[in-house]
Amino acid sequence: MTITTDQAKAVIEAGETKAVALGVPMNIVVLDAGAHLKAFLRMDRALLGSIDVAQRKARTSALFRAPSEAIWDYCKPGAPAPGLELSNGGLAPFGGGLPLIGREGAMIGAVGVSGGSVGQDLEVARAAAAALIP
Amino acid sequence: MTITTDQAKAVIEAGETKAVALGVPMNIVVLDAGAHLKAFLRMDRALLGSIDVAQRKARTSALFRAPSEAIWDYCKPGAPAPGLELSNGGLAPFGGGLPLIGREGAMIGAVGVSGGSVGQDLEVARAAAAALIP
Amino acid sequence: MTITTDQAKAVIEAGETKAVALGVPMNIVVLDAGAHLKAFLRMDRALLGSIDVAQRKARTSALFRAPSEAIWDYCKPGAPAPGLELSNGGLAPFGGGLPLIGREGAMIGAVGVSGGSVGQDLEVARAAAAALIP
Amino acid sequence: MTITTDQAKAVIEAGETKAVALGVPMNIVVLDAGAHLKAFLRMDRALLGSIDVAQRKARTSALFRAPSEAIWDYCKPGAPAPGLELSNGGLAPFGGGLPLIGREGAMIGAVGVSGGSVGQDLEVARAAAAALIP
Repeated sequence: MTITTDQAKAVIEAGETKAVALGVPMNIVVLDAGAHLKAFLRMDRALLGSIDVAQRKARTSALFRAPSEAIWDYCKPGAPAPGLELSNGGLAPFGGGLPLIGREGAMIGAVGVSGGSVGQDLEVARAAAAALIP
Repeated sequence: MTITTDQAKAVIEAGETKAVALGVPMNIVVLDAGAHLKAFLRMDRALLGSIDVAQRKARTSALFRAPSEAIWDYCKPGAPAPGLELSNGGLAPFGGGLPLIGREGAMIGAVGVSGGSVGQDLEVARAAAAALIP
Repeated sequence: MTITTDQAKAVIEAGETKAVALGVPMNIVVLDAGAHLKAFLRMDRALLGSIDVAQRKARTSALFRAPSEAIWDYCKPGAPAPGLELSNGGLAPFGGGLPLIGREGAMIGAVGVSGGSVGQDLEVARAAAAALIP
Repeated sequence: MTITTDQAKAVIEAGETKAVALGVPMNIVVLDAGAHLKAFLRMDRALLGSIDVAQRKARTSALFRAPSEAIWDYCKPGAPAPGLELSNGGLAPFGGGLPLIGREGAMIGAVGVSGGSVGQDLEVARAAAAALIP
């Protein structure tokens, strides 16, 4: 099972709605379960540098089936896997990437958000991911 | 002037509508005038390999302010710029990428489409680009 | 649906058996439906340069849901998509990559073979892919 | 002397057996003495992100003829070679990569394992490497 086009649109739209509410223009990425690009939207005035960051967050989540910031527990100073963030072309081990969970409870893709503070990015990612919860 | 989020959504939607009419699932990319990703949609069952091809077509168009296939006239056998297609990380010098023209007549971005035959891709790209024409 | 470990092993083993019968050491790659590495075997004395070639063939097949050589019809001299082979990090538009089809008829992965002549590579790829046919 | 196909299969199989015993699906990579891919297996449900990590661990071991985590002593904070982990396309200076030693005591390749905790990865790598000890 991987995410459908309709689901991806709903994720993007829910993220955009939250970003508008926060007043922060965001880049929002949806990947499928194989970490391939499914949908993307850059809101007007969102930072150019955040296009890549949003994609890395989503990719980090899809590849490790975890929130992007969970990777930091493995590679932060003193943690058991220093340099893990260098793998897979460069991970983004901080908040804003979340797995997307389908109705059967399996990961069907991932969302990545970047453009504001890490806290704002995560808030938008959560709102986006919640679009798949019935 | 560069493309707005609303314009990008309209371009994607017009392309998707045409692709549905043709019965061919497509990857549709919108870049801004600086060749940076603005919006993207992969329709269900569109080829994974076409994600990159669609992006290259749009990038080729945005970078050279021309339909992607126009590059071929410069790099085809006997033409004056052999290898031009190797520049910029690899161009896609065939149909399916088009500049997006704003109301003042200037290029505000580009669209790239891939998933069907070159003729189908170009047809969808034209329908997508036409969404900006009042 | 994507290929299982047991299926991947059966594909590799069937390819190896055919390569032994031909007397040509091969590199055999199995990717899943998302073009991610699932299994690999380099037979003794197989060419080092064929590791990458086998992976590109399998990747070409997985990304375009087609035998790798089918891409050549689109990018050969006079064909409508010159330079298509430059996409996706470089395709291998010649024989030796095949989609792997599961019991429901959908693509569940791809196999890529390199080490001999293109004809030998394709023969081994066919034997490998046939391991999934009940 | 470099690892043979039969030896590589034995290494993969011993690693898989240990991973099954631990109940953690793993990616297991075998490289030859020249750090070229010899064999690979991704067990069902192993993390996609660990394909690359397992390869980096094995590569780190093969390139420096040492357990992958030994590199950390050179590049950790205060150590004499900061940034060493950025060399060679990015090393993985943490546990799970081990040299494979042949009967004459020389390195004939390396194994890399990723998918669980660093401790689990190392345990599987040790079991895999032990397959070559008569």
